[in-house]
Amino acid sequence: MMMLASRRTFMSTTLVAAAVPSALPAASYTWAEIEKFIEKGDVKGKLTRADLPTPALLLDLDAFEANVSKMIGYVKGKGRAIRPHGKTHKCPEIAQRLIAAGAVGACAAKISEAEAFAAAGVRGLLVTTAVVGKYKIERAARLARLAPDTMFCVDNMQMAEELDAAARAAKVTIPVAIDLWIGNRTGIQPGAPAVALAEGLQRLKNLKLTTVQAYAGHAAHVVGFAQRKKVSTEEMGKAVETINAIRAKGIAMERLTGGSTGTYNIDTDIDGVTELQPGSFMFMDVDYNRIGGADGNEFYGDFPNSLTVLTTVVSKPHDALVIVDGGLKAFSTDKPFPPRIKDNSAVTFAYGGDEHGKLTFGAGAKALSVGDKAEFVIPHCDPSVNLYDRLFCLRGGNVEAVWRIAARGMAQ
Amino acid sequence: MMMLASRRTFMSTTLVAAAVPSALPAASYTWAEIEKFIEKGDVKGKLTRADLPTPALLLDLDAFEANVSKMIGYVKGKGRAIRPHGKTHKCPEIAQRLIAAGAVGACAAKISEAEAFAAAGVRGLLVTTAVVGKYKIERAARLARLAPDTMFCVDNMQMAEELDAAARAAKVTIPVAIDLWIGNRTGIQPGAPAVALAEGLQRLKNLKLTTVQAYAGHAAHVVGFAQRKKVSTEEMGKAVETINAIRAKGIAMERLTGGSTGTYNIDTDIDGVTELQPGSFMFMDVDYNRIGGADGNEFYGDFPNSLTVLTTVVSKPHDALVIVDGGLKAFSTDKPFPPRIKDNSAVTFAYGGDEHGKLTFGAGAKALSVGDKAEFVIPHCDPSVNLYDRLFCLRGGNVEAVWRIAARGMAQ
Repeated sequence: MMMLASRRTFMSTTLVAAAVPSALPAASYTWAEIEKFIEKGDVKGKLTRADLPTPALLLDLDAFEANVSKMIGYVKGKGRAIRPHGKTHKCPEIAQRLIAAGAVGACAAKISEAEAFAAAGVRGLLVTTAVVGKYKIERAARLARLAPDTMFCVDNMQMAEELDAAARAAKVTIPVAIDLWIGNRTGIQPGAPAVALAEGLQRLKNLKLTTVQAYAGHAAHVVGFAQRKKVSTEEMGKAVETINAIRAKGIAMERLTGGSTGTYNIDTDIDGVTELQPGSFMFMDVDYNRIGGADGNEFYGDFPNSLTVLTTVVSKPHDALVIVDGGLKAFSTDKPFPPRIKDNSAVTFAYGGDEHGKLTFGAGAKALSVGDKAEFVIPHCDPSVNLYDRLFCLRGGNVEAVWRIAARGMAQ
Repeated sequence: MMMLASRRTFMSTTLVAAAVPSALPAASYTWAEIEKFIEKGDVKGKLTRADLPTPALLLDLDAFEANVSKMIGYVKGKGRAIRPHGKTHKCPEIAQRLIAAGAVGACAAKISEAEAFAAAGVRGLLVTTAVVGKYKIERAARLARLAPDTMFCVDNMQMAEELDAAARAAKVTIPVAIDLWIGNRTGIQPGAPAVALAEGLQRLKNLKLTTVQAYAGHAAHVVGFAQRKKVSTEEMGKAVETINAIRAKGIAMERLTGGSTGTYNIDTDIDGVTELQPGSFMFMDVDYNRIGGADGNEFYGDFPNSLTVLTTVVSKPHDALVIVDGGLKAFSTDKPFPPRIKDNSAVTFAYGGDEHGKLTFGAGAKALSVGDKAEFVIPHCDPSVNLYDRLFCLRGGNVEAVWRIAARGMAQ
């Protein structure tokens, strides 16, 4: 009521809001009001895309929900579990929605990310990097008390012994996964070294080995489905052999977890892979769009792009050059290609420093003026999400929710 | 007292902290204690480098203080003012220290960054990107009420009119700078277009034109001092000509601001440039180290590297490969070269995904084991600082302070 009463036009009436695809009537809030709506997440029925401060991270809810439904349906249809990787979204709200849709939990890359998820009530956590050093091991034991089903990775006996000692001190039994090196990230060599570690872990009474984790990140981004299938099948094959060799020692194992958005329709056909941990499927990015689909298309379109960055044109130094307010701090920059404009496809983006992007215009491109918006698909979703505190969730042109990226910056 | 009383050894005594260069006696805090010390900034005399959760952003205070003293002394010695750019540090604590050391204020890239500085009491702000759109203009007027000496950039008449209307509504007079395009970032063309804008601004009674801003970012990173001097002198020459042409119209102008860490010893010799706005000098990075010095050295060593990222070895998949816990989310990735290890120079870093870095070892490199630390100079300082919430300030091996990067993520 107070908010309705305080609705007013702040600026001169010569300021007209840019047209946006929106069912909401154009309201005239002050920035002070909008700031409060965003802070409280009280945006539904109030704000449209045009109201958001740019650069802003946007989620198209229709595309996001379709992606979640498709991926979880596919993986479960193949009789496998799915524990989507939280390093992609860093957002407890999303982790909870994935679990509500059928996921068994959430992966977290690091202990601090897992702590942020657990604090928000997310359970079924798997910390995919080994927890190293006395303080992080202490944090692992503390997390195990708060969320006892949290799994931790180990890849060497010394750290396993330290984790076991911390678990004993905290009076918990910690479920652990052997992290396997199959050419990517971290882990112990498959085969004999991993089997020896599995045997060693049997001595540690406060750890319970249940899982092998094997992530072939390099396979995920192989361009061309046939070649990607070949690489992933070879790499995951080493993990299947290893978990079978551990079982042959009389050690019961519950799961082999791995796989990615690039290999979801490959790894789910590999006997022995029981759980997938993809992340990017919910958002997608330019990088994944380039890997090619099982349908033979060069554009990998299994999951539509739901994640974008909205910018505003802030300067037009000359007719052929337009500057937007998103640069190196608004987009991931680890890929050798730039953000891709969502509409107006003859427009090319180039980085213009920390704070700006330079747009140039090919044949047929629609001209842009100062104050216009430009929206971009991101080169690489995970490190881009990590730049923002909030995800603005849109249904068409209306803002339906604001989700906190609570684990942003939690790389520890 | 409570903290002293609660000192205790949490883990088994088999855990020995890694040796660090430190004058502090080895204390045994629990993580819960350390977490509180860090949260409160109550770290002096308590924590050492070995206690910090990695990846962590470190500031070598001795190098930082030397850099601040050298740059400010040099620029003031040339009779110019300095308003260091806050987009580099995003840290009010640093802005205040720079002002205490003789800076006239702080630049801020965007309105949200300026708001964060102003809220912490920083004055003498210059927002270096034009404020576009009705809500940001409303924010500008609000900021002008809080911090009346804040300067804003304009580069077109329409936005200037909107800013003037907002200033009138807020009952303030806003000092403005004409932002000049000299090949980089944003702005209006030098010469006649800028002079026409200056004349137009005279009609707007709630804006007061005092300044021309001209930033030749492309000049800043030209490799080789002689060539860099040539480019910067040419580009800044356009700005000098323009401000003189504005003055010739009878318009009094107070300052021409621009310049960078790469051109501080070039632009301060250009007649008419009255103020510098460098940022990187306080931290430095691999990128700036490559541009070459006025002394003829290929390594630009005018300002020692004070900023690093500390990581921990978390996995050793095989003898020739070590994995640290810093990857795409721990370092800027916009440059085509990787982080540079601080010591142990025969070690090479390569990105190993979002969360990890891969270290390989050349001839003479010291081996690293799981649990060891590795510290890196960052490819590009500004976007790296933007990844962290806290800057851990070290004197030798001891942590002396924790400074909040309060404007992190403030790209709006």
